[in-house]
Amino acid sequence: MNIHIMTLFPEMVMGGLSTSITGRAMEKGILSIEAVNIRDYAFNKHQSVDDYPYGGGAGMLMQAEPVYQCYQAIMEKQSTQKKVRVLYMSPQGQTFSQAMAEELAKEEELIFLCGHYEGIDERVLEEIVTDYVSIGDYVLTGGELPAMVMVDAISRMVPGVLHNNVSAEFESFQDSLLEYPQYSRPEIWHEKQVPPILLSGHHANIEKWRREQSVIRTAKNRPDLLEKAELTEDEKRLAKSVRL
Amino acid sequence: MNIHIMTLFPEMVMGGLSTSITGRAMEKGILSIEAVNIRDYAFNKHQSVDDYPYGGGAGMLMQAEPVYQCYQAIMEKQSTQKKVRVLYMSPQGQTFSQAMAEELAKEEELIFLCGHYEGIDERVLEEIVTDYVSIGDYVLTGGELPAMVMVDAISRMVPGVLHNNVSAEFESFQDSLLEYPQYSRPEIWHEKQVPPILLSGHHANIEKWRREQSVIRTAKNRPDLLEKAELTEDEKRLAKSVRL
Repeated sequence: MNIHIMTLFPEMVMGGLSTSITGRAMEKGILSIEAVNIRDYAFNKHQSVDDYPYGGGAGMLMQAEPVYQCYQAIMEKQSTQKKVRVLYMSPQGQTFSQAMAEELAKEEELIFLCGHYEGIDERVLEEIVTDYVSIGDYVLTGGELPAMVMVDAISRMVPGVLHNNVSAEFESFQDSLLEYPQYSRPEIWHEKQVPPILLSGHHANIEKWRREQSVIRTAKNRPDLLEKAELTEDEKRLAKSVRL
Repeated sequence: MNIHIMTLFPEMVMGGLSTSITGRAMEKGILSIEAVNIRDYAFNKHQSVDDYPYGGGAGMLMQAEPVYQCYQAIMEKQSTQKKVRVLYMSPQGQTFSQAMAEELAKEEELIFLCGHYEGIDERVLEEIVTDYVSIGDYVLTGGELPAMVMVDAISRMVPGVLHNNVSAEFESFQDSLLEYPQYSRPEIWHEKQVPPILLSGHHANIEKWRREQSVIRTAKNRPDLLEKAELTEDEKRLAKSVRL
């Protein structure tokens, strides 16, 4: 999978993504991530890419042409004839979700466009963007952090990126349930003991306990997720008793 | 405002936050952000901070003691006697929102705890964490990106951090409406003209047009936000006509 990130802050993006799992996937060659500096496509001698908005207002706007030239440069290197999705990080967009991460992980090429300042000239967005995506209902300085968040979530779903496929499978949201509590050594810490069942060695009972804890936590903290979860009749009763 | 981020990847966090608005706020001394390496509080000679989870399962868990020692070291430097909020980045948590960013921006000190691997021993979370927060319903590799997202959103709400207070005020979500389209030079780009009203110089008409565009976009893309917006009767009719 090849990911191209159009940004004014390429070092920030690459710094954030070269750590940990995405970094290892790049080293293994499963994933290629490049941050392309929009400023390299500025068309004036000051290398400026922003200008005042028509109609007035606070702040500066990213102009259409440098963004468009940057996009063209990425597209010229493409070997596939397939239409490449261009994701623009914007509060206007559809809210990003695990289902969207799984869907996007199937693409061969993805382009992320990060806005900055007060945004980007509408006309270039109309021309190149295929998906408007928001990571949540809060205002951020630019599209860089949202792009990094999305790349991280999507990369995890690309086969071979995680050490063990089990890892992705058992985690929160995979089954619409929150994760159960976990404990590591020592057995007693600050007078708190690890739940004895986890030391029992009885695998089936441990699984049962963990599943129950997940149901309890989800019912307590995120009851909205329960509707999507596939629960047994016993689990439905358990969830109901927590919520009462 | 002083922000402390407990993490295994301090360079990644500081790299991401030293750019742009948070970076400038740190230079101006409005904001101090430090990333504290949990690994510095490892208690064995290999500097390991993780161990297998009791009861089995994929992956490793961050142990209680290094996290606790790291927290204690941050607290010892505190001059305030006030209880400091400790935010743990977790899908278990309340979903982060602009309202939460505004509320947290009023604190003098904030501690972020970033988990990694399969999570953190439950007992230390019980002992130190005051808020469980999630930035959205998707699975990420660690708590670092969510912490960076939250610090960015919160910082913007701290007085003096943005150049102009207008900037924060007019942006998406401030008024529960999405932002209007924006245009910068040139007047015609790829045969697309800037909407003539923006060139009219008539301030009141421009404001009216922008507000209408915001209502139309919100009705089209995020109708759920409209309930919270304060709309005039005319705007309610406009929103309704878009949705039909």
